[in-house]
Amino acid sequence: MLATVIYGERDVRLEEVPDPVLSTGGDAIVRVVAACVCGSDLWPYRGVAPTNEPHRIGHEFVGIVEQIGAEVSTIKVGDFVIAPFYDCDNTCVNCRNGVSTSCLNGVWWGSDDRMGGFADGAQGERVRVPHADGSLVATPEQPDDALVPSLLTLADVMGTGHHAAVSASVTQGSTVVVVGDGAVGLCAVLASKRLGASRIIAMSRHADRQAVAREFGATDIVDLRGDEGVARVQELLDGIGADCVLECVGTKESMEQAIASARPGGMVGYVGVPTGGPIEIRPLFGRNVGLNGGVASVRGYVDELLPEVLSGALNPGRVFDLELPLAEVAEAYAAMDERRAIKVLLRP
Amino acid sequence: MLATVIYGERDVRLEEVPDPVLSTGGDAIVRVVAACVCGSDLWPYRGVAPTNEPHRIGHEFVGIVEQIGAEVSTIKVGDFVIAPFYDCDNTCVNCRNGVSTSCLNGVWWGSDDRMGGFADGAQGERVRVPHADGSLVATPEQPDDALVPSLLTLADVMGTGHHAAVSASVTQGSTVVVVGDGAVGLCAVLASKRLGASRIIAMSRHADRQAVAREFGATDIVDLRGDEGVARVQELLDGIGADCVLECVGTKESMEQAIASARPGGMVGYVGVPTGGPIEIRPLFGRNVGLNGGVASVRGYVDELLPEVLSGALNPGRVFDLELPLAEVAEAYAAMDERRAIKVLLRP
Repeated sequence: MLATVIYGERDVRLEEVPDPVLSTGGDAIVRVVAACVCGSDLWPYRGVAPTNEPHRIGHEFVGIVEQIGAEVSTIKVGDFVIAPFYDCDNTCVNCRNGVSTSCLNGVWWGSDDRMGGFADGAQGERVRVPHADGSLVATPEQPDDALVPSLLTLADVMGTGHHAAVSASVTQGSTVVVVGDGAVGLCAVLASKRLGASRIIAMSRHADRQAVAREFGATDIVDLRGDEGVARVQELLDGIGADCVLECVGTKESMEQAIASARPGGMVGYVGVPTGGPIEIRPLFGRNVGLNGGVASVRGYVDELLPEVLSGALNPGRVFDLELPLAEVAEAYAAMDERRAIKVLLRP
Repeated sequence: MLATVIYGERDVRLEEVPDPVLSTGGDAIVRVVAACVCGSDLWPYRGVAPTNEPHRIGHEFVGIVEQIGAEVSTIKVGDFVIAPFYDCDNTCVNCRNGVSTSCLNGVWWGSDDRMGGFADGAQGERVRVPHADGSLVATPEQPDDALVPSLLTLADVMGTGHHAAVSASVTQGSTVVVVGDGAVGLCAVLASKRLGASRIIAMSRHADRQAVAREFGATDIVDLRGDEGVARVQELLDGIGADCVLECVGTKESMEQAIASARPGGMVGYVGVPTGGPIEIRPLFGRNVGLNGGVASVRGYVDELLPEVLSGALNPGRVFDLELPLAEVAEAYAAMDERRAIKVLLRP
């Protein structure tokens, strides 16, 4: 089959790779209907994270189940399924605690499953899922094709934006600042709106992203960053700051901006993969600003968000502004790298 | 009157200072019945925090109201009152948000009140309280002298231990680790017990403190620290870690130990004044460990904790293991510095 392999900086290739095969009994093979490129895929693409040897890439997909192992009980051949951006058993103590990204038996896509099998990367034609019952969520029926983009966001960006909002304790009437206008930041705006935030300030300097942020519920746009951005946010919020700040970038600068935008007693929910250095505790301590979040346990959120996506009430798929065939995966990366697209959907 | 002045490293003196006088209408003058020495007073005493010029010191006291300003409405002359370790108006937006340590009009004891008056340090005979209605809580009647130590803990250490527990979301059935066996750490054990924790592991290497921790509800004592301490905690908690970790020290090492003791998705509630360098985000991010806390807003906790202290259900005063006359304040500092006492109560 064809799948995407990253070789190094700005070098991703669609290549012939071995077809996946069932091996452990609890696994399934899924034909990918749609995959996409994540902001975090750009770290190795840009060389910020080194690629020591070529490896499979991609961690977001939806698809149709083609084969299941003998022990699979909740997933059936033919099901349309959403996979989270990681494999998990959904039964271990960490999964039960709601932190399935720390699953004791979990596997990252594109790596060995420590049971003798391989979990394929998502930017390919098929993926072997080690823990099918734990990881996959089937839709009640085959969804309309128009719903595919929104369903695909449940694999990562919508769940991750929701995690930022939940981690920051966004609730009815909250004032919210969202730092970051990538797909996750935009989904964080949508998640905040859904949870009842009364004021949502989106930090964005790009007209196309500002437009989506407005559609998703942003009440204010601030097109400044750093100290200037903080000053403008404080001006909008009576000099006190926001109840909740959603950090969706991951740099040291964005984290410091997020912390300074929170009010005393406020909470920063952060989901941006940290790429900066360590942070000072004093600015948190002195003002009782909390820091909560991490690798989003999106598996647990699919059940909560799926009905609203299926009903059309929630349309996070709007973050995809470019769709390409899988054969053009290299162009998909380039378009995101050069900010010509917010997020690119790939169809095998 | 007599009050304590710190001159520099290991140099505190009881001196004649001007009597406090009413000046703003909303103020009160309180005769101190009991004060004490805080772990944080040891930072300047030990020279860790420099003392550039002599200044008044002490921030924990209970006492009897002697005079009130014309605008004071809830506090009366003759009331026995508990003061938090800071002055606050209890009406500004930050106070209403439960973060009275960030009061927009707040004053630290031992400093000018920015209204032309002075807020005395607590280790003295009398204290002028700038915002009497906001800061002071009167007991319903004159308390028995035996209750004075426990009432005094509501000024800081019991409220601060409670803040650590609340910030870490301790609730019925939580597993808790408390890092730090000073008065605040011990009160954090008591607060966790009160909030329903099922397992409380106290990190302590001192027999006297271990005994108090046991009395306060610790189910396990770990007399190791650093990586060894973490390994022992993980062994006690099935290799997963604690739901809640209460950091009551403030060094970089204690914070790292606290973070490593939390389970994935767990929360570190920290109240130790940060004296270490910056901390890495990755160990928090990868395991979804949150960080919450700061300068404890104890004013808001007095109302909740006071009835249990008055009824005798809660006995945090047990942390005082030495009582001295105010005249021996220098010896009080020395006893705490040399760990001859957990916490010293001073009687003017």
